[in-house]
Amino acid sequence: MKRFGIFIALCSVAATSGFAMAEKAIPLPAPNGLEIPKDYKDWRVIAPSHRTDNDSLRVILGNDVAIKAARAGNTKPWPDGAILAKLVWKDRKDENWEDATVPGKFVHAEFMFKNAKKFNATGGWGYARWLGKEQKPYGDDASFAQECYACHTPVKSRDYVYTTPAQTP
Amino acid sequence: MKRFGIFIALCSVAATSGFAMAEKAIPLPAPNGLEIPKDYKDWRVIAPSHRTDNDSLRVILGNDVAIKAARAGNTKPWPDGAILAKLVWKDRKDENWEDATVPGKFVHAEFMFKNAKKFNATGGWGYARWLGKEQKPYGDDASFAQECYACHTPVKSRDYVYTTPAQTP
Repeated sequence: MKRFGIFIALCSVAATSGFAMAEKAIPLPAPNGLEIPKDYKDWRVIAPSHRTDNDSLRVILGNDVAIKAARAGNTKPWPDGAILAKLVWKDRKDENWEDATVPGKFVHAEFMFKNAKKFNATGGWGYARWLGKEQKPYGDDASFAQECYACHTPVKSRDYVYTTPAQTP
Repeated sequence: MKRFGIFIALCSVAATSGFAMAEKAIPLPAPNGLEIPKDYKDWRVIAPSHRTDNDSLRVILGNDVAIKAARAGNTKPWPDGAILAKLVWKDRKDENWEDATVPGKFVHAEFMFKNAKKFNATGGWGYARWLGKEQKPYGDDASFAQECYACHTPVKSRDYVYTTPAQTP
């Protein structure tokens, strides 16, 4: 009877793990309370970029408010409600095109949420980053955003945004 | 009376030009008859890439059929109806981040349209490219597609597609 009990217990564990794997876990909020936008992978492109100081490829996406602003050239300042997402991958040499760098391992997704009043202490933008495919929130406590803000301060005159929307027809 | 007639005629020309400028011209079809997808700039991302042999940054987008296939790993072969768009920009050194390459001048938008039967002669894909911000169709006649097909033949085992969909969470 004891053995049968253990068998049942193991089955329960297996079933629970199965469910956990089937349903994708929702990432935890960032330490400053910001939540990852649910549909960010479906957002439209603002620009790609490539950084050789840390060997990474990036694509910068925008939510509807940000895309509308980017296309209208309405980015100084960006309007409240705009969210910019940056998806970052480590460089990988393409196996079929020698001189092409393509996305390797997924590094992180990071976000800037524009709300001039709410995020006044950090230049009108709220910052958050989720690491890896596990989407682990970055930062030990809410002070992590000071690090983001410091790095974006050199482009204060561009409303703290490095990205220039790519030209398109 | 004659002078008044000329004045009216000039006003008509001015009004017509005004309308022509207000409405964005629709690009001509490619020499093989393929038309540029109207909403391609709103498509979702499959991957960015960077080529150092011709100093260009790229972003590869997909229509809904292509995105569904890419996310499901259903790309050998890609399903009929899938369209891949590649937007290409010349490299530009970012003025605020020394080691970042960002999009400069828009080079072209090029497309692969999957239809195994219709495009059987070119590996199941129809090819087209529109140059510059003017979106001038590439190629003097329909034979231009042989050039595209030849360049994609080394990756026949990948259904003629170089791009590997980028990993995401």
